[in-house]
Amino acid sequence: MHGRRIALLGGGQLGRMFIENALRYDVEVHVLDPDPACSCAHLAHRFVQGRFDDRDTVLRFAVDADVVGIEIEHVSVEALEELERQGKTVVPSPAVLRTIQDKGLQKAFYRDHGIPTAEFALIAAPSEIALHPQLLPAFLKTRTGGYDGKGVMPLHTLADAARAFPGPCVLEKRADIARELAVIAVRTTDGRTTVYDAVEMVFDPVLNLVDVLIAPATVPPDVKARAEALAVQVAEAFGAPGVYAVELFLTTTGEVLVNETAPRAHNSGHFTIEGCASSQYDQLLRIYQDWPPGDTRLPRHAAMINLVGEGGTGPVDLQGIDAVLRIPGTFVHLYGKRETRTGRKMGHITVLAGSAEELRSAIAAIKAACRVVPRAPLTIDEERR
Amino acid sequence: MHGRRIALLGGGQLGRMFIENALRYDVEVHVLDPDPACSCAHLAHRFVQGRFDDRDTVLRFAVDADVVGIEIEHVSVEALEELERQGKTVVPSPAVLRTIQDKGLQKAFYRDHGIPTAEFALIAAPSEIALHPQLLPAFLKTRTGGYDGKGVMPLHTLADAARAFPGPCVLEKRADIARELAVIAVRTTDGRTTVYDAVEMVFDPVLNLVDVLIAPATVPPDVKARAEALAVQVAEAFGAPGVYAVELFLTTTGEVLVNETAPRAHNSGHFTIEGCASSQYDQLLRIYQDWPPGDTRLPRHAAMINLVGEGGTGPVDLQGIDAVLRIPGTFVHLYGKRETRTGRKMGHITVLAGSAEELRSAIAAIKAACRVVPRAPLTIDEERR
Repeated sequence: MHGRRIALLGGGQLGRMFIENALRYDVEVHVLDPDPACSCAHLAHRFVQGRFDDRDTVLRFAVDADVVGIEIEHVSVEALEELERQGKTVVPSPAVLRTIQDKGLQKAFYRDHGIPTAEFALIAAPSEIALHPQLLPAFLKTRTGGYDGKGVMPLHTLADAARAFPGPCVLEKRADIARELAVIAVRTTDGRTTVYDAVEMVFDPVLNLVDVLIAPATVPPDVKARAEALAVQVAEAFGAPGVYAVELFLTTTGEVLVNETAPRAHNSGHFTIEGCASSQYDQLLRIYQDWPPGDTRLPRHAAMINLVGEGGTGPVDLQGIDAVLRIPGTFVHLYGKRETRTGRKMGHITVLAGSAEELRSAIAAIKAACRVVPRAPLTIDEERR
Repeated sequence: MHGRRIALLGGGQLGRMFIENALRYDVEVHVLDPDPACSCAHLAHRFVQGRFDDRDTVLRFAVDADVVGIEIEHVSVEALEELERQGKTVVPSPAVLRTIQDKGLQKAFYRDHGIPTAEFALIAAPSEIALHPQLLPAFLKTRTGGYDGKGVMPLHTLADAARAFPGPCVLEKRADIARELAVIAVRTTDGRTTVYDAVEMVFDPVLNLVDVLIAPATVPPDVKARAEALAVQVAEAFGAPGVYAVELFLTTTGEVLVNETAPRAHNSGHFTIEGCASSQYDQLLRIYQDWPPGDTRLPRHAAMINLVGEGGTGPVDLQGIDAVLRIPGTFVHLYGKRETRTGRKMGHITVLAGSAEELRSAIAAIKAACRVVPRAPLTIDEERR
């Protein structure tokens, strides 16, 4: 297709799924990741082992690229700024990424743009927690470096401040959450914003990871519409082309609040691969290539079940996948990670169904059927056989 | 997934689409093809340049594989027989391939199994054509080596025998064709056969290539059912696991006849990639890995438009693809071929729709929008600018 050459920072599963879609358009994708066994290593047209958070490494890696994208936020923004100055297309915009990388700036951004979000204060040190008793009970979030629930702790009373993170944090009043929602918004190069259907995320209370995602969300139509409108507002406030995964809370009092945004493809958008004609990965590719935006409609019901490692560390044993392969309308995605760990995302399963009811029984069947555990070492008896 | 290691003979677009699907299961695919610039070259876990019709090359290539598959029929059957003797899983069975590679054996096979097919005679030389005047007007087909309409010629009268192919041929009475249909049948390792919906193929009269494919076929239900039943009968007669693409004729007198079978993924099954939960490529993978068969249902209407080269040879210019990317429900597939030629399959577009009517207008829009031509050389004036 004589497309633009894409340099992708990060070679995890999001990059892998991006490449899986890009292959059918025959475009060139180069990947930078410190791990030579990462999910993208053998799929990229060119794989470079190196740190995506190191300015010079990124600049060297992307020197021949037309477009620079990310599949993880923890990249060198300085390098992206320099690459943008060189005239390359950089998605997300480095300015957006700078705001989002710092949870304090991100919260302030929502407040400054009139986007509803849980009440908060920015604090420089744990001693300042006592200045905001009205925010308790709260969550304390490190301003930078957090990921998948890391860098977040609950503060029930002022006494909990004793074990608080030491550095600059966001102190955020705990919302009474009825449901967690997410909306993938797509801002195109010509300045229009479209969204996918709002989805509902059901979290694993132990691992703090999305367990099951249901699309569309089973909330009243006005709540769904408000969530989708907020995602549009967020993408328009950021104002730069890209895919924005906007996570939201529906509170017990019926408010819809923006929790946080990822300026990239996201776990909450995996269902779009089979659920929609143009997936979140396809939209990113269209933005990178300056092609027209794709079709975000969801003609059927979809669910996504994360395959998360349980039971410790070791080579992967994917139990019960045969049973899953027998369930109509299922799609298995494995990320090619050699080692499983408790809480590590090893893959996911998408299921499409004609009705919400059919979807619920498929989810139950899938969840009952399979799990990812470390392969058991042979016992002495087995070794002797 | 710790799957079996797959050795694939042939690295064209069928192999490419096979790998595109296999990636999400994280299985290993090795590819053998004489062309180092073939569609699969950079996608395979390991690419070996070499002839798939050379016994020793194939044996060396597949030495470490658990499963051997094909994406083209013109491979060394001797090598496949030897690999099967070595205990590897070989799909299709070499015995099936031997029958299908020879159009004479294939036609005799249908006759011997009571499968309706156009009347025919096997002839050793053009002089024998005169022995079968009742078969004229006819098609003369070389018994081996034909492909995509090559090795086939019409014989209107005995006078045409003067320019007939010299060697052994099938002389086949010309059926009065109302429609051309195809059915992809899947025979699993446990001996069950399932089929996808029968589809209808509309041919380009000049290139003799499928121009547009419509799924499901717009024929009366009993015709569709007969076509699907015949495909099951063909797969059961062959009796070995695999994907069988069965091409059929609906005659003007309402008969359904088997034309020919390909024991592999096929152009007429590309629509299953987005149309069905488990595509023809996914079914092949499941057979290779001894996983349960997949879901063949087609919940919506689908069409597939081949992107065939026009206007000569040269680097690819894909005109109008931007317009196609704007049409809802479309999926672009480009095969990564560097050079276009008149009649060469360069890619395809699948479109899904909620009704037959919506499908028809999408097909018209796609066909009007795009074509594949060689890039025009710069004129002297353009070069000076």
